[in-house]
Amino acid sequence: MPIITLLTDFGTQDSYVAEIKGVILSHFQRALKRRMVLPWLVDITHDIPAFDVARGAEIIGKVYRTFPRGTVHLAVVDPGVGGDRKPIIMQAAGQYFVGPDNGIFSIPAREDSKYKAHEITRYPRNVSSTFHGRDIFAPIAAALAGGEKPARFGPLIETITFLPPNYHCPASGRDWEGEIVSIDRFGNLITSFPGHLIQKMNQPCLKIKRTKISNFLPDYCHGTTGELCVIVNSHGHLEISIPNGSAQAKLRADKKCRIWLFEASISPASQKSQ
Amino acid sequence: MPIITLLTDFGTQDSYVAEIKGVILSHFQRALKRRMVLPWLVDITHDIPAFDVARGAEIIGKVYRTFPRGTVHLAVVDPGVGGDRKPIIMQAAGQYFVGPDNGIFSIPAREDSKYKAHEITRYPRNVSSTFHGRDIFAPIAAALAGGEKPARFGPLIETITFLPPNYHCPASGRDWEGEIVSIDRFGNLITSFPGHLIQKMNQPCLKIKRTKISNFLPDYCHGTTGELCVIVNSHGHLEISIPNGSAQAKLRADKKCRIWLFEASISPASQKSQ
Amino acid sequence: MPIITLLTDFGTQDSYVAEIKGVILSHFQRALKRRMVLPWLVDITHDIPAFDVARGAEIIGKVYRTFPRGTVHLAVVDPGVGGDRKPIIMQAAGQYFVGPDNGIFSIPAREDSKYKAHEITRYPRNVSSTFHGRDIFAPIAAALAGGEKPARFGPLIETITFLPPNYHCPASGRDWEGEIVSIDRFGNLITSFPGHLIQKMNQPCLKIKRTKISNFLPDYCHGTTGELCVIVNSHGHLEISIPNGSAQAKLRADKKCRIWLFEASISPASQKSQ
Repeated sequence: MPIITLLTDFGTQDSYVAEIKGVILSHFQRALKRRMVLPWLVDITHDIPAFDVARGAEIIGKVYRTFPRGTVHLAVVDPGVGGDRKPIIMQAAGQYFVGPDNGIFSIPAREDSKYKAHEITRYPRNVSSTFHGRDIFAPIAAALAGGEKPARFGPLIETITFLPPNYHCPASGRDWEGEIVSIDRFGNLITSFPGHLIQKMNQPCLKIKRTKISNFLPDYCHGTTGELCVIVNSHGHLEISIPNGSAQAKLRADKKCRIWLFEASISPASQKSQ
Repeated sequence: MPIITLLTDFGTQDSYVAEIKGVILSHFQRALKRRMVLPWLVDITHDIPAFDVARGAEIIGKVYRTFPRGTVHLAVVDPGVGGDRKPIIMQAAGQYFVGPDNGIFSIPAREDSKYKAHEITRYPRNVSSTFHGRDIFAPIAAALAGGEKPARFGPLIETITFLPPNYHCPASGRDWEGEIVSIDRFGNLITSFPGHLIQKMNQPCLKIKRTKISNFLPDYCHGTTGELCVIVNSHGHLEISIPNGSAQAKLRADKKCRIWLFEASISPASQKSQ
Repeated sequence: MPIITLLTDFGTQDSYVAEIKGVILSHFQRALKRRMVLPWLVDITHDIPAFDVARGAEIIGKVYRTFPRGTVHLAVVDPGVGGDRKPIIMQAAGQYFVGPDNGIFSIPAREDSKYKAHEITRYPRNVSSTFHGRDIFAPIAAALAGGEKPARFGPLIETITFLPPNYHCPASGRDWEGEIVSIDRFGNLITSFPGHLIQKMNQPCLKIKRTKISNFLPDYCHGTTGELCVIVNSHGHLEISIPNGSAQAKLRADKKCRIWLFEASISPASQKSQ
């Protein structure tokens, strides 16, 4: 039962995503003599901001573990298309990842130290120089979903390209310094702080801009409508929220905004530093 | 041939919807020993405004009848996640409905007086407190689509939570009073008036703000480009439209805007009331 | 292995698209006695601007060739619904096209001179006058995907309705005159000039508004971030781009904006004409 997921920065108003799907289904139909079914095509998202490889990497990192072994993840956020970045096939956690080697697969590679990657050097002819998603990655994703082995498409490479980790938060003294990593549709501010940091703290306090939040809750529902709180979100990170409201709208905070986590009972350096 | 539909207020730019789909497909693959196919995953919409349970209920109410018996509808507009609202499985019209008991399934329950509902009390461990869509509802939707019975997941409950009906329009004297229930992408204003109201009227007239519309037509094409008209729409309700234009842009009317329907030949109270 | 694609101007926030999908799947389940699988439903796009038949035709024209033979393309951009435009089934390039006869299938018909079209005169009863996508086209697309023949639904017609071609560019002397046909999510300006025009030119130059671009490149990656260039895009047309940027934002050009292509070494008429 082949599954192919798609993640791109193409949006959904143009023809690009549908062309990729058409190519995958066409390649598969040629393989139907072997009585395979067509693959399940699952859209992860096509709303990655244009050229934002780091956001693509973040989403893949959150999603891939929910899919079964053997799934093929096709990711095309590819500002370097036509240049010298390599097209690759990566194997990690029992799944396949197909796309450009620009760091978009950093998280599964970091989470599975036994990952393997092949550079794609053999692919169909007549490739456009601007749309490798359709002309290289789609047929190869179809082939992998149909049972082909990655080695057929090119040589093993020693390492892939990595982006710096999103969730790195250096400690200075007794404070942790971090940032807003992303903001979801509800205006929740997802921080770079892993949730376990607060397990050892007595009275944790999170500072963002001039606001200090000491309202740490188990979930949105224990909060008060309209009041800022911090929860451990469904990916295990601290998240600044407002029950039935938008923390982003209230704090006017953007991605990359600096934040601090500290014991409220101790006067932290960071309180003075801003 | 299992079908699972998805309706959420998650949008499509985050990882949430894809995580739900991954969990469903993973749960199904474990069941593949019984030679089942993976389920068809059909997006109803993920563009429900954040926390807008009534809009979710309206969309489900319009859509569910078009699907075949046995379909599992997974609906996650869940401002009360982590609180004391119940997670439920409802059976109505030969279909399954899985989600929070906050009124989102009001319409199928109202339309099938023999509906049955189970509270979900048995579900996977390690459930996050903020994402029951992924951690409770998705695996249970997968199990139902795979043939499990609702009773396996918890006890029958006597009633579900209902929202007030959208299409209630009280009569005062010979007028009907109603409101704009929703506005579609074309700027059509969908009213709370059922279409059959005009069958008994000689010269129906609809008043919205300071505008009276007596141009009642069988469809958009009998209208004049740019001119307001009222039609009976594809769900059997009166709808204010402009052929090849937007009634919303012209009338600047919002959801909940009060409207009146009356015989043009009679001077109605409502004409004076505004 | 039936495949049905969907292209509409319905957006994704309303119930319309899901109703079409529900009807297709319901019709198919009735046919499951013959042990068919449900069809693969592939969204082309639902973000066609309201009533913009030409944009729908452009997208179908770019996408259909990537799909396998036997695919059924269901297209509903239908400002004339309920009027006297014909509902049709077209066969071209081994595929089926179902929708209104308003020019939306111009490109596949132009590219396959042996195309055939049937007017749809036999369809389910109880058809709404405003939503033929759900009530006529969806069940017929399902029937075709299930193996029914077009002749079952109505008589052959001699011709379909054609839109004027998008990529016509008249030559005046040694210049070519064209326009911006569409603008994609990245701000790339897709022109009406086929790429082969520059093969015969020594120093091609493209003029748009008061800007002349002579930076013709094989792909985005050979350009300089922030600098305008012209490439041959993945559909074989000239495209004005900015590597890692938006040509639309820089040039503030809209669809239909006039453009000229000429030899830079020759003083062209068009240089004076503006």
